[in-house]
Amino acid sequence: MYGVLHARRDMRHFVPGQSVPDEVLERMLRAAHCAPSVGLMQPWRLIRVRDPALREGIALLVEQERLATAAAMQQRTDEFLALKVEGVRDCAELLVAVLAPDDGTLFGRRTMPRDMALCSAACAIQNLWLAARAENLGMGWVSLFEPAALGQLLQLPAGAQAIAVLCLGPVPAFYPKPMLELQDWRQGRSLQDMVATDQWPAVLPC
Amino acid sequence: MYGVLHARRDMRHFVPGQSVPDEVLERMLRAAHCAPSVGLMQPWRLIRVRDPALREGIALLVEQERLATAAAMQQRTDEFLALKVEGVRDCAELLVAVLAPDDGTLFGRRTMPRDMALCSAACAIQNLWLAARAENLGMGWVSLFEPAALGQLLQLPAGAQAIAVLCLGPVPAFYPKPMLELQDWRQGRSLQDMVATDQWPAVLPC
Repeated sequence: MYGVLHARRDMRHFVPGQSVPDEVLERMLRAAHCAPSVGLMQPWRLIRVRDPALREGIALLVEQERLATAAAMQQRTDEFLALKVEGVRDCAELLVAVLAPDDGTLFGRRTMPRDMALCSAACAIQNLWLAARAENLGMGWVSLFEPAALGQLLQLPAGAQAIAVLCLGPVPAFYPKPMLELQDWRQGRSLQDMVATDQWPAVLPC
Repeated sequence: MYGVLHARRDMRHFVPGQSVPDEVLERMLRAAHCAPSVGLMQPWRLIRVRDPALREGIALLVEQERLATAAAMQQRTDEFLALKVEGVRDCAELLVAVLAPDDGTLFGRRTMPRDMALCSAACAIQNLWLAARAENLGMGWVSLFEPAALGQLLQLPAGAQAIAVLCLGPVPAFYPKPMLELQDWRQGRSLQDMVATDQWPAVLPC
């Protein structure tokens, strides 16, 4: 269990032309679906992209957002553009995770309704990610898209929001540490920076 | 791995008077900290509550919100009040998970900045939950609180938001299925309701 948690990576490099056996995908989806959810609302929906034209449409949206992100950066634009940030065209399976329209659940979400639904959906995605790693498959969470545009492409109903384009499938190798660290984009911080006792201390960095 | 995913439960019943060995807590916190995060921003912070007065203050906030939720319900109020919804006073360890103030990370969050930070923090909490289960400890995510009031109690800086009160520790037994199902509060839905191909179909329930 701990081995899987520590070996999970946000993958952007996939072996093209592969597939995921149905029974493996089913096991993984069941793992996602046993995630916790506030008030048992289960706000996650998954759209499996099988239509090549739809996959291409998603790839174009992601590329648009990659360029928009590069343009919004004050510095490191070229460095950002040199990074591989997604594997939408190469991965064996492409899934879109959608936050369902609010079903009105009050239990546990009177004060933070959207936040708690979103957290529940994220837990399901994390379960899927860990199941993938246990199956020796890579997964990448791509968030480089305009949710309204992707929602239109997928004909989502009002109130639903795409939150993740999930690239899934066999990978050449798992990164030994986060790819953004390997590429010297950013280094992760130590656990001791993240944990404090009894109150937020002056020394705990933002 | 799959066994842990399926056996994890949102626990509200704990064995009082217990403790979690330091090395076990450390392993679990390391598991949380290896969670994925958008742009490697690692927006999770954890406050370990050791001060009994602080724990009591949190318990009172949660109780206030439990009553406020009951009052907001149009029906099933008595049934809700009869449910055990938290184990703040009984659990061995109490942690508060906080979403850190926005550090300005642009990578992967130009279009959904807060959502993606929140999802990252939720993934870390899910890792912690699974690590707890692997250690045969229960965890419960309590979201029954006013975040502003809890933030004040913990002296959080501007922009930080408490998103979870996490009850952790030995439990009498793990629920065989979600407690809200056992108590006939609500039944979970089947996986086939949650997965569709290529577009949101008319039959996919909200």
